[in-house]
Amino acid sequence: MNIIPDSKWINSLYERERKKIEKRIQDSVKDKNPESLYLPASYILESGGKRLRPLLVLLSAKAVGGNFKQAYNAAVAVELLHNFTLVHDDIMDNADKRRNRLTLHKMYDTSTAILVGDGLLSVAYEYLLRDCNGNTKAVLSAFTKGLLEVCNGQSIDKEFETAKNVSILEYFDMIKKKTASLLETCCKIGALLGGGGKNQVKALSSFGKNLGIAFQIQDDLLDIIGDEKELGKKIGGDLVEGKKTYLFVKAMEKANEKERKFLFNLVKNKGINKKQIPAFKKIYSKLGVLEEARKDIEKYSVKALSSMKIFNDEDKKIYKWLTDSLISRNR
Amino acid sequence: MNIIPDSKWINSLYERERKKIEKRIQDSVKDKNPESLYLPASYILESGGKRLRPLLVLLSAKAVGGNFKQAYNAAVAVELLHNFTLVHDDIMDNADKRRNRLTLHKMYDTSTAILVGDGLLSVAYEYLLRDCNGNTKAVLSAFTKGLLEVCNGQSIDKEFETAKNVSILEYFDMIKKKTASLLETCCKIGALLGGGGKNQVKALSSFGKNLGIAFQIQDDLLDIIGDEKELGKKIGGDLVEGKKTYLFVKAMEKANEKERKFLFNLVKNKGINKKQIPAFKKIYSKLGVLEEARKDIEKYSVKALSSMKIFNDEDKKIYKWLTDSLISRNR
Repeated sequence: MNIIPDSKWINSLYERERKKIEKRIQDSVKDKNPESLYLPASYILESGGKRLRPLLVLLSAKAVGGNFKQAYNAAVAVELLHNFTLVHDDIMDNADKRRNRLTLHKMYDTSTAILVGDGLLSVAYEYLLRDCNGNTKAVLSAFTKGLLEVCNGQSIDKEFETAKNVSILEYFDMIKKKTASLLETCCKIGALLGGGGKNQVKALSSFGKNLGIAFQIQDDLLDIIGDEKELGKKIGGDLVEGKKTYLFVKAMEKANEKERKFLFNLVKNKGINKKQIPAFKKIYSKLGVLEEARKDIEKYSVKALSSMKIFNDEDKKIYKWLTDSLISRNR
Repeated sequence: MNIIPDSKWINSLYERERKKIEKRIQDSVKDKNPESLYLPASYILESGGKRLRPLLVLLSAKAVGGNFKQAYNAAVAVELLHNFTLVHDDIMDNADKRRNRLTLHKMYDTSTAILVGDGLLSVAYEYLLRDCNGNTKAVLSAFTKGLLEVCNGQSIDKEFETAKNVSILEYFDMIKKKTASLLETCCKIGALLGGGGKNQVKALSSFGKNLGIAFQIQDDLLDIIGDEKELGKKIGGDLVEGKKTYLFVKAMEKANEKERKFLFNLVKNKGINKKQIPAFKKIYSKLGVLEEARKDIEKYSVKALSSMKIFNDEDKKIYKWLTDSLISRNR
């Protein structure tokens, strides 16, 4: 019989593993040559973060009856892949700041940032291969599929920038690829490396995917209701940048003619003036899209956790804690 | 007994295989969504080229006793990896033209080019995995090592841009990583996929590496002695861009004080005015560095072919033909 763990126990497990992962992430680029590549790579990896993706890898290996040790390198690999996307996306978005620090291409230059992204992805594959034993093809295929989906998702997101109209279906298709597929990948490769059976791999993949959808909608919501200091970036940044977020797409669908005309300024001017943020917020509130976002976050979290019924109580409790802390997060 | 093939036979083999590879390369991105990613990807892949790298994969599979069919997807993969590096390098070098056409970031924009590079690399891994059976870890490790070396080599090449002084040893270290490692990788994964033994894999890897060194020095030489039309780019382009090529590095080492001061203009002004190209050519001739380049090309070609003595006469003849056509090429 498993003892069902309490939040304190899970929290200390998380902190302990986060520290281990953190060290391994830093070590993956430490003291390597050429310095012109690996020092900037350290800069981006030092900026911290929740390390959610590595954690999903480790927990998935454990849930299927394996252990953390089987997946530490893979845990590093998914975080490197994630940072590869951040570095390249920040160039494309012309973003100045990330996590309260200058983005890599602002700190260095665009060439360095392109190359650091490429280098991180290479090291990611190198690390992933270290944990593969007998299941290399399945693990590498899952990882590569995730990578390809992220690239496809990012392209669709770039298409949104110039699109006059984005439907909520198109929005969901985009976030499934750009965000959810990587979380799905993390769970899948963790399960594979832990020696999981077909149903376990499938269940965890489904968990990761649905958690990813909830996670991205939460991200969009935080741009409006979040706290600047906690978030490490300006509130309403998505509006200023003209991003077609969950809130914006939903609002456009529900707005009356007058409201739609006002909201359309975001499309027409490729982003709004920050003075207009309160007016957008007000329309969002009035149309109930903040509430709808909360409901969809809840819906996809429940869906995620419903995949987990085949696992034992300890693991279910851990996944519940993880899901709750993500959807109630403020950064 | 094998019949030793003549050049005509080899040439027709090459043309036949090149066409097959060409079709598979185009198909790898054809009719895929999102179009904003795969149409620009088609643009770069349509620009042709010798398809040397895929050919090396196929020939290596054959040389170890396997066949072409075992390695067609891997052949596509190495060409996609190569094009990934071209697209990203062209952004970093701010290059306008490649093979007589606009570079991808000039035809589209930098964001698209970054993403197309990333996408091509993802598809490369996807294709490579298709040909793996039982040897996935070895094949993927070789490919990933090659990728990492290329990134490291490109970083060193970027360091050269601002370096006051580059030694010939540093130059060789850079081209081994930036150019030779990919050719080495092609031969290695072809040999692995064809079911080659340890010594065969080692011999072919050594062939690829040394051929790569000869190939890059030839590339540097063609910038001075090549034909503009055949080459698809301006003669002296490396000088105008301020690249520390084999010729420049060697010339700096052999020059007298007066000549060195003149040559140093390339470093000081980060490239020379095209009017100065004839003066550089004259110094290169006088110092004998064009001749030295030819000798080193010959040296590394001989070294490459010396690894091949364990193979049969037919394959030796094919590799000899390939090496000869590369080092006597004018584009």
